[in-house]
Amino acid sequence: MPAPAPFAATPEPPYHAVIFSSRRSSADDAGYAAMAERMLALAAVQPGFLGVESVRDAEGVGITVSYWASEEAIAHWKAEGEHLLAQQQGRARWYAHFEVRVAKVERAYRFDAPGRR
Amino acid sequence: MPAPAPFAATPEPPYHAVIFSSRRSSADDAGYAAMAERMLALAAVQPGFLGVESVRDAEGVGITVSYWASEEAIAHWKAEGEHLLAQQQGRARWYAHFEVRVAKVERAYRFDAPGRR
Repeated sequence: MPAPAPFAATPEPPYHAVIFSSRRSSADDAGYAAMAERMLALAAVQPGFLGVESVRDAEGVGITVSYWASEEAIAHWKAEGEHLLAQQQGRARWYAHFEVRVAKVERAYRFDAPGRR
Repeated sequence: MPAPAPFAATPEPPYHAVIFSSRRSSADDAGYAAMAERMLALAAVQPGFLGVESVRDAEGVGITVSYWASEEAIAHWKAEGEHLLAQQQGRARWYAHFEVRVAKVERAYRFDAPGRR
């Protein structure tokens, strides 16, 4: 059973995860939303991209977890040109705080109740 | 600088993370909310607990990442009696779908702009 949207259809572990937890500033909602959408689309065409899951609540706190085939894929994405500009804007304007944790996923399982969706 | 709430003040890596991505069913919002609050409090007093970050959006999609000192701490928490009952209720009623990924955090960094909080 593949994962239904909005969950990432990741392969069997091992693979890698970038856990990005953030709080938005109050600035520039429209600019941020456009950038976030663009970055999700751009990430999805990078080598080694396996999927992404992203949630933000009404208080502006969000968690985005992206999944990658290798550490090299993560390093490549971090250094991508348009993504570098977005990271600069994030520090300059869009975020009050963020935490980045890079992890290796060692095991995984899922549960699905299709009738409840 | 320690992480401000609601971020987890985790120590220097390595440590372990449980990434729990879920979609709620439409059932029993009050019962779910009470259980979720209780489980956060109960997790926080388990051996090896390092912190937790949790977000759920208006569509009922959530990501909760809990951080642990060891694999043994994760196994102990998974088998905790009251938590086992909550897991059973989760499968029986509260969740339409979830993904659990257990990972080892290998590196981490943060950004803070206090004036923007």
